[in-house]
Amino acid sequence: MAAKGKAALFDNNKVNADLIKLTYGALVAQIIKDYERPEEVNKQLDKLGYNIGVRLIEDFLAHHNIPRCLDFRQTAERVQQAFRFYMGVQPFVGNWSPSANEFSLIWEQTSPIGDFVEFPDSCRNLEYSRVLCGAVRGALEMVQIDVKVSIVREFLLGESATELKVHFTKRLEDALPVGED
Amino acid sequence: MAAKGKAALFDNNKVNADLIKLTYGALVAQIIKDYERPEEVNKQLDKLGYNIGVRLIEDFLAHHNIPRCLDFRQTAERVQQAFRFYMGVQPFVGNWSPSANEFSLIWEQTSPIGDFVEFPDSCRNLEYSRVLCGAVRGALEMVQIDVKVSIVREFLLGESATELKVHFTKRLEDALPVGED
Repeated sequence: MAAKGKAALFDNNKVNADLIKLTYGALVAQIIKDYERPEEVNKQLDKLGYNIGVRLIEDFLAHHNIPRCLDFRQTAERVQQAFRFYMGVQPFVGNWSPSANEFSLIWEQTSPIGDFVEFPDSCRNLEYSRVLCGAVRGALEMVQIDVKVSIVREFLLGESATELKVHFTKRLEDALPVGED
Repeated sequence: MAAKGKAALFDNNKVNADLIKLTYGALVAQIIKDYERPEEVNKQLDKLGYNIGVRLIEDFLAHHNIPRCLDFRQTAERVQQAFRFYMGVQPFVGNWSPSANEFSLIWEQTSPIGDFVEFPDSCRNLEYSRVLCGAVRGALEMVQIDVKVSIVREFLLGESATELKVHFTKRLEDALPVGED
Protein backbone atom coordinates (compact mmCIF):
# COMPACT_ATOMS: atom_id res chain seq x y z
CA MET A 1 0.00 0.00 0.00
CA ALA A 2 1.51 3.30 -1.06
CA ALA A 3 0.69 5.00 2.20
CA LYS A 4 2.46 2.53 4.44
CA GLY A 5 5.39 3.81 6.40
CA LYS A 6 4.26 7.37 5.95
CA ALA A 7 2.93 9.62 8.63
CA ALA A 8 -0.71 9.09 9.42
CA LEU A 9 -3.09 9.64 6.56
CA PHE A 10 -5.20 11.72 8.81
CA ASP A 11 -5.08 15.44 9.00
CA ASN A 12 -7.54 18.05 10.05
CA ASN A 13 -7.81 19.40 6.59
CA LYS A 14 -11.32 19.61 5.27
CA VAL A 15 -12.31 20.25 1.73
CA ASN A 16 -15.57 21.54 0.37
CA ALA A 17 -18.04 18.76 -0.28
CA ASP A 18 -18.85 20.05 -3.76
CA LEU A 19 -15.33 19.22 -4.79
CA ILE A 20 -15.64 15.55 -3.99
CA LYS A 21 -19.02 15.41 -5.70
CA LEU A 22 -17.61 16.92 -8.86
CA THR A 23 -14.54 14.69 -8.78
CA TYR A 24 -16.59 11.58 -8.16
CA GLY A 25 -18.95 12.60 -10.95
CA ALA A 26 -16.02 12.91 -13.34
CA LEU A 27 -14.78 9.52 -12.25
CA VAL A 28 -18.15 7.88 -12.81
CA ALA A 29 -18.35 9.47 -16.26
CA GLN A 30 -14.91 8.12 -17.08
CA ILE A 31 -15.82 4.63 -15.89
CA ILE A 32 -19.05 4.69 -17.90
CA LYS A 33 -17.00 5.57 -20.97
CA ASP A 34 -14.76 2.57 -20.36
CA TYR A 35 -17.21 -0.08 -19.33
CA GLU A 36 -20.52 1.00 -20.80
CA ARG A 37 -22.64 -1.79 -19.31
CA PRO A 38 -24.22 -0.48 -16.09
CA GLU A 39 -23.59 -3.79 -14.30
CA GLU A 40 -19.90 -3.54 -15.06
CA VAL A 41 -19.81 0.13 -14.06
CA ASN A 42 -21.48 -0.74 -10.77
CA LYS A 43 -18.86 -3.39 -10.16
CA GLN A 44 -16.07 -0.89 -10.75
CA LEU A 45 -17.66 1.65 -8.42
CA ASP A 46 -18.00 -1.00 -5.75
CA LYS A 47 -14.35 -1.93 -6.17
CA LEU A 48 -13.30 1.69 -5.96
CA GLY A 49 -15.27 2.11 -2.76
CA TYR A 50 -13.82 -1.09 -1.36
CA ASN A 51 -10.28 0.17 -1.89
CA ILE A 52 -11.12 3.47 -0.23
CA GLY A 53 -12.82 1.76 2.71
CA VAL A 54 -9.84 -0.52 3.26
CA ARG A 55 -7.56 2.49 3.46
CA LEU A 56 -9.68 4.75 5.58
CA ILE A 57 -10.54 2.32 8.35
CA GLU A 58 -6.92 2.03 9.38
CA ASP A 59 -6.75 5.77 9.73
CA PHE A 60 -10.13 5.94 11.43
CA LEU A 61 -9.22 3.38 14.09
CA ALA A 62 -5.85 4.97 14.66
CA HIS A 63 -7.46 8.27 15.55
CA HIS A 64 -10.58 7.28 17.37
CA ASN A 65 -9.50 4.95 20.14
CA ILE A 66 -12.40 2.65 19.44
CA PRO A 67 -12.88 -0.58 21.36
CA ARG A 68 -13.82 -3.71 19.47
CA CYS A 69 -17.52 -3.80 18.62
CA LEU A 70 -19.41 -6.26 20.75
CA ASP A 71 -22.40 -6.51 18.48
CA PHE A 72 -23.71 -5.38 15.13
CA ARG A 73 -25.52 -2.41 16.68
CA GLN A 74 -22.20 -1.01 17.83
CA THR A 75 -20.81 -1.62 14.38
CA ALA A 76 -23.67 0.41 12.92
CA GLU A 77 -22.84 3.30 15.26
CA ARG A 78 -19.20 3.23 14.21
CA VAL A 79 -20.09 3.23 10.55
CA GLN A 80 -22.35 6.20 11.18
CA GLN A 81 -19.55 7.96 13.01
CA ALA A 82 -17.10 7.27 10.20
CA PHE A 83 -19.46 8.80 7.66
CA ARG A 84 -19.74 11.90 9.78
CA PHE A 85 -15.98 12.09 10.11
CA TYR A 86 -15.10 11.60 6.45
CA MET A 87 -18.10 13.00 4.65
CA GLY A 88 -19.46 15.56 7.06
CA VAL A 89 -22.97 14.18 6.67
CA GLN A 90 -24.14 11.62 9.16
CA PRO A 91 -26.67 9.05 7.99
CA PHE A 92 -29.57 7.98 10.12
CA VAL A 93 -29.33 4.34 11.22
CA GLY A 94 -32.62 2.46 11.12
CA ASN A 95 -34.78 -0.25 9.58
CA TRP A 96 -33.21 -2.92 11.74
CA SER A 97 -34.21 -6.48 10.95
CA PRO A 98 -35.82 -8.36 13.85
CA SER A 99 -32.69 -10.41 14.43
CA ALA A 100 -30.51 -7.32 14.26
CA ASN A 101 -28.36 -8.69 11.48
CA GLU A 102 -29.35 -5.97 9.03
CA PHE A 103 -29.71 -2.21 9.21
CA SER A 104 -30.04 0.73 6.88
CA LEU A 105 -27.94 3.85 6.55
CA ILE A 106 -30.30 6.61 5.47
CA TRP A 107 -29.62 10.10 4.20
CA GLU A 108 -33.08 11.69 3.95
CA GLN A 109 -33.70 13.95 0.95
CA THR A 110 -30.08 14.04 -0.04
CA SER A 111 -27.17 12.17 -1.48
CA PRO A 112 -23.81 12.42 0.23
CA ILE A 113 -21.94 12.06 -3.03
CA GLY A 114 -23.96 13.67 -5.79
CA ASP A 115 -25.62 16.99 -6.49
CA PHE A 116 -24.82 17.60 -10.09
CA VAL A 117 -25.96 14.39 -11.59
CA GLU A 118 -28.24 13.85 -14.54
CA PHE A 119 -28.78 10.30 -15.64
CA PRO A 120 -29.41 9.50 -19.28
CA ASP A 121 -32.07 6.83 -19.79
CA SER A 122 -29.41 4.29 -20.64
CA CYS A 123 -28.04 4.62 -17.11
CA ARG A 124 -31.14 3.85 -15.10
CA ASN A 125 -29.47 0.70 -13.80
CA LEU A 126 -26.36 2.53 -12.77
CA GLU A 127 -25.90 2.56 -9.02
CA TYR A 128 -24.29 5.92 -8.47
CA SER A 129 -23.99 5.42 -4.73
CA ARG A 130 -22.42 2.03 -5.13
CA VAL A 131 -19.06 3.44 -4.09
CA LEU A 132 -20.51 3.86 -0.60
CA CYS A 133 -21.52 0.20 -0.48
CA GLY A 134 -18.00 -0.81 -1.42
CA ALA A 135 -16.48 1.50 1.16
CA VAL A 136 -18.56 0.06 4.01
CA ARG A 137 -17.82 -3.48 2.88
CA GLY A 138 -14.07 -2.83 2.55
CA ALA A 139 -13.80 -1.08 5.90
CA LEU A 140 -15.71 -3.76 7.82
CA GLU A 141 -13.78 -6.56 6.16
CA MET A 142 -10.63 -5.10 7.71
CA VAL A 143 -12.15 -5.64 11.14
CA GLN A 144 -13.20 -9.17 10.27
CA ILE A 145 -16.84 -8.41 9.63
CA ASP A 146 -18.20 -9.70 6.38
CA VAL A 147 -21.22 -7.78 5.10
CA LYS A 148 -23.29 -7.41 1.97
CA VAL A 149 -24.24 -3.84 1.21
CA SER A 150 -26.88 -2.86 -1.30
CA ILE A 151 -28.80 0.21 -2.35
CA VAL A 152 -32.43 0.35 -1.27
CA ARG A 153 -33.24 3.92 -2.32
CA GLU A 154 -31.30 6.27 -4.57
CA PHE A 155 -32.11 9.92 -4.03
CA LEU A 156 -30.44 10.86 -7.30
CA LEU A 157 -32.99 8.74 -9.13
CA GLY A 158 -35.86 10.66 -7.59
CA GLU A 159 -36.42 8.60 -4.48
CA SER A 160 -36.96 10.20 -1.08
CA ALA A 161 -33.59 9.28 0.37
CA THR A 162 -30.30 7.56 -0.18
CA GLU A 163 -30.63 4.30 1.68
CA LEU A 164 -28.07 1.53 1.93
CA LYS A 165 -28.84 -1.82 3.51
CA VAL A 166 -25.97 -3.43 5.43
CA HIS A 167 -26.44 -7.14 5.96
CA PHE A 168 -24.21 -9.10 8.33
CA THR A 169 -22.96 -12.28 6.70
CA LYS A 170 -20.30 -13.71 8.97
CA ARG A 171 -17.36 -12.94 11.18
CA LEU A 172 -14.12 -13.55 9.31
CA GLU A 173 -11.56 -15.61 11.14
CA ASP A 174 -8.48 -15.87 9.01
CA ALA A 175 -8.46 -12.40 7.54
CA LEU A 176 -5.21 -10.70 6.77
CA PRO A 177 -4.11 -8.14 9.32
CA VAL A 178 -5.22 -4.60 8.68
CA GLY A 179 -2.89 -2.90 6.27
CA GLU A 180 -1.79 -5.92 4.29
CA ASP A 181 -2.45 -5.94 0.60
CA MET B 1 -25.24 22.73 -16.97
CA ALA B 2 -26.83 20.15 -14.73
CA ALA B 3 -26.79 22.36 -11.67
CA LYS B 4 -28.66 25.26 -13.21
CA GLY B 5 -31.94 26.13 -11.68
CA LYS B 6 -31.14 24.25 -8.52
CA ALA B 7 -30.46 25.77 -5.17
CA ALA B 8 -26.95 27.08 -4.71
CA LEU B 9 -24.21 24.52 -5.10
CA PHE B 10 -22.73 25.77 -1.93
CA ASP B 11 -23.23 24.27 1.45
CA ASN B 12 -21.24 24.27 4.62
CA ASN B 13 -20.55 20.63 4.36
CA LYS B 14 -16.90 19.72 4.56
CA VAL B 15 -15.43 16.38 3.76
CA ASN B 16 -12.13 14.92 4.86
CA ALA B 17 -9.31 15.85 2.52
CA ASP B 18 -8.08 12.27 2.28
CA LEU B 19 -11.27 11.39 0.52
CA ILE B 20 -10.73 13.78 -2.34
CA LYS B 21 -7.13 12.67 -2.66
CA LEU B 22 -8.16 9.04 -2.93
CA THR B 23 -10.97 9.82 -5.36
CA TYR B 24 -8.75 11.99 -7.52
CA GLY B 25 -6.08 9.29 -7.45
CA ALA B 26 -8.59 6.74 -8.69
CA LEU B 27 -9.65 9.13 -11.42
CA VAL B 28 -6.08 9.71 -12.57
CA ALA B 29 -5.48 5.95 -12.64
CA GLN B 30 -8.59 5.50 -14.73
CA ILE B 31 -7.56 8.21 -17.16
CA ILE B 32 -4.06 6.72 -17.47
CA LYS B 33 -5.65 3.41 -18.33
CA ASP B 34 -7.66 5.09 -21.10
CA TYR B 35 -5.17 7.43 -22.60
CA GLU B 36 -1.79 5.96 -21.76
CA ARG B 37 0.33 8.76 -23.25
CA PRO B 38 1.23 11.18 -20.42
CA GLU B 39 0.65 14.21 -22.67
CA GLU B 40 -2.87 13.06 -23.37
CA VAL B 41 -3.50 12.26 -19.70
CA ASN B 42 -2.30 15.75 -18.76
CA LYS B 43 -4.69 17.22 -21.28
CA GLN B 44 -7.58 15.31 -19.77
CA LEU B 45 -6.68 16.35 -16.25
CA ASP B 46 -6.50 19.96 -17.37
CA LYS B 47 -9.91 19.65 -18.98
CA LEU B 48 -11.34 18.08 -15.85
CA GLY B 49 -9.97 20.92 -13.76
CA TYR B 50 -11.30 23.47 -16.23
CA ASN B 51 -14.82 22.08 -15.90
CA ILE B 52 -14.58 22.13 -12.13
CA GLY B 53 -13.23 25.70 -12.10
CA VAL B 54 -16.01 26.92 -14.36
CA ARG B 55 -18.58 25.50 -11.96
CA LEU B 56 -17.06 26.55 -8.71
CA ILE B 57 -16.43 30.20 -9.50
CA GLU B 58 -20.10 30.89 -9.91
CA ASP B 59 -20.71 29.47 -6.46
CA PHE B 60 -17.69 31.25 -5.03
CA LEU B 61 -18.76 34.66 -6.29
CA ALA B 62 -22.33 34.09 -5.17
CA HIS B 63 -21.21 33.55 -1.61
CA HIS B 64 -18.35 35.93 -1.17
CA ASN B 65 -19.64 39.30 -2.21
CA ILE B 66 -16.44 40.03 -4.06
CA PRO B 67 -15.97 43.24 -6.03
CA ARG B 68 -14.44 43.10 -9.48
CA CYS B 69 -10.64 42.75 -9.35
CA LEU B 70 -8.89 45.95 -10.31
CA ASP B 71 -5.55 44.36 -11.02
CA PHE B 72 -3.84 41.00 -11.26
CA ARG B 73 -2.61 41.21 -7.67
CA GLN B 74 -6.19 41.27 -6.47
CA THR B 75 -6.93 38.34 -8.73
CA ALA B 76 -4.09 36.41 -7.09
CA GLU B 77 -5.56 37.08 -3.66
CA ARG B 78 -8.97 35.84 -4.76
CA VAL B 79 -7.50 32.69 -6.21
CA GLN B 80 -5.67 32.12 -2.94
CA GLN B 81 -8.89 32.67 -1.04
CA ALA B 82 -10.78 30.25 -3.26
CA PHE B 83 -8.22 27.53 -2.64
CA ARG B 84 -8.60 28.03 1.08
CA PHE B 85 -12.34 27.87 0.78
CA TYR B 86 -12.57 24.76 -1.38
CA MET B 87 -9.48 22.81 -0.45
CA GLY B 88 -8.78 23.94 3.09
CA VAL B 89 -5.13 24.57 2.28
CA GLN B 90 -4.14 28.05 1.28
CA PRO B 91 -1.22 28.43 -1.11
CA PHE B 92 1.40 31.10 -0.66
CA VAL B 93 1.35 33.70 -3.44
CA GLY B 94 4.80 34.78 -4.64
CA ASN B 95 7.42 34.85 -7.36
CA TRP B 96 5.79 37.81 -9.04
CA SER B 97 7.24 38.82 -12.38
CA PRO B 98 8.57 42.42 -12.51
CA SER B 99 5.62 43.56 -14.60
CA ALA B 100 3.17 41.78 -12.27
CA ASN B 101 1.64 39.71 -15.05
CA GLU B 102 2.74 36.43 -13.53
CA PHE B 103 2.69 34.91 -10.07
CA SER B 104 3.10 31.56 -8.43
CA LEU B 105 0.79 29.64 -6.13
CA ILE B 106 3.01 27.67 -3.78
CA TRP B 107 2.19 24.88 -1.35
CA GLU B 108 5.48 24.29 0.51
CA GLN B 109 6.34 20.68 1.31
CA THR B 110 2.94 19.41 0.38
CA SER B 111 0.50 18.67 -2.36
CA PRO B 112 -3.10 19.75 -1.97
CA ILE B 113 -4.37 16.83 -4.00
CA GLY B 114 -2.09 13.86 -3.44
CA ASP B 115 -0.67 11.89 -0.55
CA PHE B 116 -0.96 8.36 -1.69
CA VAL B 117 0.73 8.59 -5.01
CA GLU B 118 3.50 6.44 -6.40
CA PHE B 119 4.56 7.15 -9.95
CA PRO B 120 5.83 4.35 -12.12
CA ASP B 121 8.80 5.38 -14.28
CA SER B 122 6.57 5.51 -17.33
CA CYS B 123 4.64 8.34 -15.72
CA ARG B 124 7.43 10.79 -15.03
CA ASN B 125 5.89 13.20 -17.51
CA LEU B 126 2.51 12.97 -15.96
CA GLU B 127 1.43 16.23 -14.37
CA TYR B 128 -0.56 15.04 -11.41
CA SER B 129 -1.43 18.55 -10.29
CA ARG B 130 -2.57 19.56 -13.71
CA VAL B 131 -6.18 19.52 -12.56
CA LEU B 132 -5.36 22.57 -10.43
CA CYS B 133 -4.02 24.43 -13.46
CA GLY B 134 -7.21 23.72 -15.33
CA ALA B 135 -9.36 24.80 -12.41
CA VAL B 136 -7.64 28.19 -12.11
CA ARG B 137 -7.83 28.71 -15.86
CA GLY B 138 -11.50 27.76 -16.02
CA ALA B 139 -12.50 29.89 -13.07
CA LEU B 140 -10.67 32.99 -14.29
CA GLU B 141 -12.01 32.61 -17.81
CA MET B 142 -15.50 33.00 -16.35
CA VAL B 143 -14.53 36.43 -15.09
CA GLN B 144 -12.99 37.37 -18.42
CA ILE B 145 -9.38 36.82 -17.44
CA ASP B 146 -7.40 34.65 -19.77
CA VAL B 147 -4.42 32.96 -18.15
CA LYS B 148 -1.91 30.24 -18.85
CA VAL B 149 -1.22 28.03 -15.86
CA SER B 150 1.69 25.63 -15.66
CA ILE B 151 3.43 23.49 -13.08
CA VAL B 152 6.82 24.75 -11.90
CA ARG B 153 7.43 22.28 -9.09
CA GLU B 154 5.66 19.03 -8.29
CA PHE B 155 5.99 17.94 -4.68
CA LEU B 156 4.78 14.46 -5.54
CA LEU B 157 7.81 14.03 -7.80
CA GLY B 158 10.18 14.80 -4.97
CA GLU B 159 10.42 18.57 -5.36
CA SER B 160 10.24 20.91 -2.39
CA ALA B 161 6.79 22.26 -3.12
CA THR B 162 3.83 22.23 -5.39
CA GLU B 163 4.18 25.40 -7.42
CA LEU B 164 1.89 26.61 -10.17
CA LYS B 165 2.73 29.60 -12.35
CA VAL B 166 -0.23 31.74 -13.39
CA HIS B 167 0.51 33.94 -16.39
CA PHE B 168 -1.88 36.71 -17.44
CA THR B 169 -2.53 36.58 -21.17
CA LYS B 170 -5.37 38.95 -21.88
CA ARG B 171 -8.67 40.28 -20.72
CA LEU B 172 -11.50 38.60 -22.58
CA GLU B 173 -14.11 40.91 -24.03
CA ASP B 174 -16.77 38.83 -25.66
CA ALA B 175 -16.93 35.98 -23.24
CA LEU B 176 -20.21 34.27 -22.56
CA PRO B 177 -21.90 35.31 -19.36
CA VAL B 178 -21.10 33.20 -16.35
CA GLY B 179 -23.24 30.11 -16.26
CA GLU B 180 -23.70 29.63 -19.98
CA ASP B 181 -22.48 26.44 -21.53
